[in-house]
Amino acid sequence: MKALVYQGPGKKAWTDREKPAIQKPTDVIVKITKTTICGTDLHILKGDVPTVDVGRILGHEGVGRVEEVGSAVRNFKKGDPVLISCITSCGSCANCKRQLYAHCDDGGWILGHRIDGTQAEYVRIPHGDNSLYPIPAGADEEALVMLSDILPTGLEIGVQAGKVKPGDAIAIVGAGPVGMSALLTAQFYSPGRIIMIDMDPARLALALQFGATNTVQVGDEDAVAAVRGLTGGQGVDVAIEAVGVPATFDICQKIVSAGGNIANVGVHGKPVDLHIEDLWIKNINISMGLVCTSTTPMLLKTVQAGKVDPTKLISHRFSLNEILDAYEVFGNAAREKAMKVIMAA
Amino acid sequence: MKALVYQGPGKKAWTDREKPAIQKPTDVIVKITKTTICGTDLHILKGDVPTVDVGRILGHEGVGRVEEVGSAVRNFKKGDPVLISCITSCGSCANCKRQLYAHCDDGGWILGHRIDGTQAEYVRIPHGDNSLYPIPAGADEEALVMLSDILPTGLEIGVQAGKVKPGDAIAIVGAGPVGMSALLTAQFYSPGRIIMIDMDPARLALALQFGATNTVQVGDEDAVAAVRGLTGGQGVDVAIEAVGVPATFDICQKIVSAGGNIANVGVHGKPVDLHIEDLWIKNINISMGLVCTSTTPMLLKTVQAGKVDPTKLISHRFSLNEILDAYEVFGNAAREKAMKVIMAA
Repeated sequence: MKALVYQGPGKKAWTDREKPAIQKPTDVIVKITKTTICGTDLHILKGDVPTVDVGRILGHEGVGRVEEVGSAVRNFKKGDPVLISCITSCGSCANCKRQLYAHCDDGGWILGHRIDGTQAEYVRIPHGDNSLYPIPAGADEEALVMLSDILPTGLEIGVQAGKVKPGDAIAIVGAGPVGMSALLTAQFYSPGRIIMIDMDPARLALALQFGATNTVQVGDEDAVAAVRGLTGGQGVDVAIEAVGVPATFDICQKIVSAGGNIANVGVHGKPVDLHIEDLWIKNINISMGLVCTSTTPMLLKTVQAGKVDPTKLISHRFSLNEILDAYEVFGNAAREKAMKVIMAA
Repeated sequence: MKALVYQGPGKKAWTDREKPAIQKPTDVIVKITKTTICGTDLHILKGDVPTVDVGRILGHEGVGRVEEVGSAVRNFKKGDPVLISCITSCGSCANCKRQLYAHCDDGGWILGHRIDGTQAEYVRIPHGDNSLYPIPAGADEEALVMLSDILPTGLEIGVQAGKVKPGDAIAIVGAGPVGMSALLTAQFYSPGRIIMIDMDPARLALALQFGATNTVQVGDEDAVAAVRGLTGGQGVDVAIEAVGVPATFDICQKIVSAGGNIANVGVHGKPVDLHIEDLWIKNINISMGLVCTSTTPMLLKTVQAGKVDPTKLISHRFSLNEILDAYEVFGNAAREKAMKVIMAA
């Protein structure tokens, strides 16, 4: 089969690899029909994720058809359309039993990281009964690719961890795919004001189409002053960090109001200064984490009910064989005005 | 009347001051019967709290008898025994209506800070109906002085913000009065293991008497390794920071397990390094804040029901006229083996 293989920092290839086989009775082999690229894949390709070995097939998002099931698999059979969760989970360890699937003793984020991933014609999914979701009949499979990772990440780690409530003023720092996912799913909870903050005017314009009530262009204006101006000097109830650098975390610290929440979604590579000398007295809460995809069933229902349209996030479409072109576009997202790119087999 | 007056960094005096008078219809004048000293008072005396003016009467804890009420006060009359909350709150602003009394638009922590406090024969309490609590008949008033600040602080900002649950492994870093208050009130929620961490072996011995299951003496052993050893390598579900310096916050970052909580209670004077490059993936929560004393009614019930005995925290007793001696003892807590000192009028 063909697969996108990491060949060390800065290097990748769309090349021949052996088709995966069942290794454990709980495994499922899935034939990929649609997959996408995540910002994390770009980090891996830069060499920023040392736990990824050379030779690894990348990708942790996708939908497909069941090709083969292990002897212990009960929920799926050959031919079933399935959504792949970016999080593999056994369902029975102590962390899984509290829905902390990201920290499964025999899983977590391993796809396209510690085991081969979804940017290939076939992928092996361990603990298939718990790590795959059946796709409802008639569902738009392109939409569901967004449910592998970014939509539950925005919802769980941004919106839910940030405790977004009806009427709240919220700010989302970073209008990339995950920030936009927070923007779309925040609207489930009817915040009164959603301020989108980014450097890219094209992304901010898109954010307004997606439901943001206000935008702040960093560089063009002082983000902290702008948010204060929009909130009567109070700051926001919830600040969602969706970039992962000290400067954006710092904006969140400065715009959160007393009694509010900072929900960190960004993946950080270095420490940040926590201004606890100012914040200790403000009764705030700071959350952070890896998505557990515990909301996937809920998100499937919201997509089916038309409460959210994740296809809005798709800016470019390719065939799976054009994956190197797709990387070129996604890797130059500002220039290409790219949000999410879809590759179809 | 006599009062303990701040006279600039390093200077205080037990001196004559005019007895306070009603200024607003919602004011209550209280004759102090018992008061105490807080670590915050020591910070003020060092000059660390620049919002305290020279000439300020210190103190934000105490019990007393109502001496006089303003014309709008409905809940109290002359002679009533009352508990003074360290937090003054109007009860009707937007923050008060969500029980965020610490951020009352016309209150918060102002006693012994922005207005004259409780280390005096009389004190004026603004918004008396909301800032005072009636003392139940037969209650031990010494015990209730601990409910002005430290017990609700340990409970709300440590135990409740940290979401302590039955069976949890928790660690409390700092065995001073507030850490001990967290230790006492954590037991309402039946954690399975309570590890107390401090440098002072006398305080750790006391913590064992107060219900800690384990102690770790910093300096004598590596606190992080010790906690990992006690928790099967997992770390704790909840780490409560009750000191307020970078080193103790750092211990909390290193001992919290995936899915756990860091509850910061300590008052910090400088930023801390937040190791978000390690923690972002751990699904943790960090809370911090000033006590709202929203749990005071609950704590009054627990004291009356014998569920907690706050008098355990009292190590030394003085008359109000001996307040300078009390400061001498409390200011040398390690040498004097002091926890809380009580002064009775």
